[in-house]
Amino acid sequence: MTSQLTRRIVLASRPEGAPKPENFRIEETALPPLKDGEVLLRIAYLSLDPYMRGRMSAAKSYAAPLAVGDVMEGGTVATVMESRHPDLQTGDVVLSHSGWQSHAVASGNAVRKLDPRAAPPSTALGVLGMPGFTAYAGLLTIGKPAADETVVVAAATGPVGSAVGQIARVKGARAVGIAGGEAKCAFLRDTLGFDAAVDHRAPDFAAQLAAACPNGIDVYFENVGGAVWDGVFPLLNDFARIPVCGLVAQYNQTAPFPGPDRLPLLMRDILSKSLTLRGFIQREFVDQRPAFIADMTKWIATGQVRYKEDIVSGLEAAPDAFVGLLEGRNFGKLLVQVSDLPA
Amino acid sequence: MTSQLTRRIVLASRPEGAPKPENFRIEETALPPLKDGEVLLRIAYLSLDPYMRGRMSAAKSYAAPLAVGDVMEGGTVATVMESRHPDLQTGDVVLSHSGWQSHAVASGNAVRKLDPRAAPPSTALGVLGMPGFTAYAGLLTIGKPAADETVVVAAATGPVGSAVGQIARVKGARAVGIAGGEAKCAFLRDTLGFDAAVDHRAPDFAAQLAAACPNGIDVYFENVGGAVWDGVFPLLNDFARIPVCGLVAQYNQTAPFPGPDRLPLLMRDILSKSLTLRGFIQREFVDQRPAFIADMTKWIATGQVRYKEDIVSGLEAAPDAFVGLLEGRNFGKLLVQVSDLPA
Repeated sequence: MTSQLTRRIVLASRPEGAPKPENFRIEETALPPLKDGEVLLRIAYLSLDPYMRGRMSAAKSYAAPLAVGDVMEGGTVATVMESRHPDLQTGDVVLSHSGWQSHAVASGNAVRKLDPRAAPPSTALGVLGMPGFTAYAGLLTIGKPAADETVVVAAATGPVGSAVGQIARVKGARAVGIAGGEAKCAFLRDTLGFDAAVDHRAPDFAAQLAAACPNGIDVYFENVGGAVWDGVFPLLNDFARIPVCGLVAQYNQTAPFPGPDRLPLLMRDILSKSLTLRGFIQREFVDQRPAFIADMTKWIATGQVRYKEDIVSGLEAAPDAFVGLLEGRNFGKLLVQVSDLPA
Repeated sequence: MTSQLTRRIVLASRPEGAPKPENFRIEETALPPLKDGEVLLRIAYLSLDPYMRGRMSAAKSYAAPLAVGDVMEGGTVATVMESRHPDLQTGDVVLSHSGWQSHAVASGNAVRKLDPRAAPPSTALGVLGMPGFTAYAGLLTIGKPAADETVVVAAATGPVGSAVGQIARVKGARAVGIAGGEAKCAFLRDTLGFDAAVDHRAPDFAAQLAAACPNGIDVYFENVGGAVWDGVFPLLNDFARIPVCGLVAQYNQTAPFPGPDRLPLLMRDILSKSLTLRGFIQREFVDQRPAFIADMTKWIATGQVRYKEDIVSGLEAAPDAFVGLLEGRNFGKLLVQVSDLPA
C-alpha cells in the first residue's frame, strides 16, 4: 500500500497584526501508515474560528501556541477512508480535530462518530458543536438571564452570537443583537427572532443601542471586545453579568492600545454597579455537554433555534476566509468545504 | 426643655481631586425636639471610611451623593441621652448612622443596641461592623479561597484588609498583605500572622510581590486599585477570583487617566485565564450577617482575628484625618473620638 498524501496549510510565519497570505503556506506530504486503533480520514468540512488567531502568536493564551511549520489547528468533519479501530468503519462520518488539511490520521478514540440522519454533519462544528456549546454554557451558567431581562450579544449572526440570542429568547429574556450592516441586522430580527438588532457601523451606534435597550443591559455576552464595548458599558444595569469568551476585535492589535486608560473606569463601574465579569472556555463546562446536545437538538427541531452557515469551497480558500472572519466579512458559521461527504 | 445643640461638619463644597479643608465647614445648629419613637444621641465614635469620598462628588455611585450643605455621612457609636422609644433607655450605647456631628436625633428603630460587655463598642464600626463584614462576605462568597491557595489583599492593615488576610488564614489559605511602609508590613507578619507582607512603596514592589507569591495568586481582594494592580495582574492564576469592594487609590482622580489603555489587556487576561471580577457592596449579603457576627466573635475570642484601631480625638480632627485616610496615613481602623462613652 502506498501511503496517503495530504495537502495541508501550515503556519509559515507569525503575523504582525492581521494575518496576511505570506503567514500561510500550502504543502503536500505523506501521512504515516495506520497503526492499530487509528483511522485514515478525508476531511469534508474545516471549521474556521476566531480562537485560531491566538494560536498563531507566540504569546501565552489559554492554549499553547502553534510552532512555525505546524499544520493550522481546527475542528473538522471527516469521512473514514480506512479504519484500524474496532468501532469505526470505512464510510463513517466523524468529528475530529484534524486542522487545515485534506487528509489526516487520527486515533479512533479521539474522534466522535456522527449520525448524518440526526443532523447535518456540518452542524457538529457550529450550532451543535463548540460554538453552540460556548453560547449555551456561558449564557446559562454565567449570564443566567432571568425572564424579561435584556441580553446583548455582538457578532450576533455568528455561530456563538446567534445561539446566545436565541437561547436567551427560549429562556424568556429579551435578545438584542449587534452586527455589521443592515442585511445582518434584518436577518437577526426577521429570521432569528431577536427583539432588536443594531448595526455597529452606524455613526450613532451608541444611541441606537440605548434605544434598543430601554431597560438597560443585564447580560452582555462578550465575544468581540473593541469599540462595541464603549456603547454597552454605560447601559449595564446593577448586578449585570458579562461572560467573556472572545475578543476578536483586538486579536490583531500589536502596539500598546492608545490612551486614555479605561481600566480605572471599568473598575469603578464593576464596583458601583456590582458587575460580574467572568472569562471562560467551554471545556470548563464539559459536564454540561449531554444537556446541551439534548436541549439544542430539541430547540432546532421546534424551530426555536435556527442557524446559518457560510461555506467557502476548497482548502486553498481557508487563509483568505480566515482573514475575513477576523474582519466580520462572513455571514453565519464559517466553514471550508474540503471534500464531499459520502452520498 | 431647650433643644439640644449639635456641632456638625457639613460638605461646604465638592472637592476637585483630594479633599481640602475648605471642602468642609463646621457649624452649630439646634436639633428638633424628639418625637415618639426617637432617641437623642451623643456621638462617642465616628467611623471614617473611604466610601465617603464618593459621597462628596456629584457623580452617581452605589449611593446617592450628598448635597452641598449636608452633614457628612458616617457610621457612629453613640450614647442615648433621652429616649422616646420603648426598647431604649438613657445610657444605652447604640450603633447609628448619624454622621460627622456631636449629637443627633434618630429613629429608635434605625439604631442597634450594643452590649459593651460583649465587645468594645468601637468594634461595631470595624472588625465587627461594616468593614469586617465586607471582608467576610466578599472573601468567602466571591473569593472562596481553598486551603493552600494564595490570597492577596492591599491596604492590609486597614479594617477590611486585616480581616481578609486573617479570615483567609482561618480557612487554611496563604495570606499575603500589601501595605505602605515597613512598620505596617512587620505588623502584618508579626501581629496579624500574615504569611508575607510587601511594601508597595518599595522600588522593586512587583518583584517582591512575585517572590511572596511563588504559586501565583488565586484570590486578589481589591479594595485599593491603582498601581498595586500592575504588580498583582501578571501573577493571577487561571480561575483566580477578584472581589472588588473599593478603589481608594483612584477616588481623588479627576482628569482622564493617561494611556496606554490597559482595558484590552485586562479583558485578554480575563479571557485567557478564566478570571472572575465581581464588584460588591456588603449590604447585598445582609442574610450572612448573623453568621458573620457569630464567626467573627469566636475568631476574636480565640485570637485568630486581631484588630487595630487608629483613634483621633475631637470632631474638628475629622477632615484632616479623612484626607490622611485617602493617602494611607492611618494605621488601623480610623475612628474619631467625639465624646467619652459612659463609664
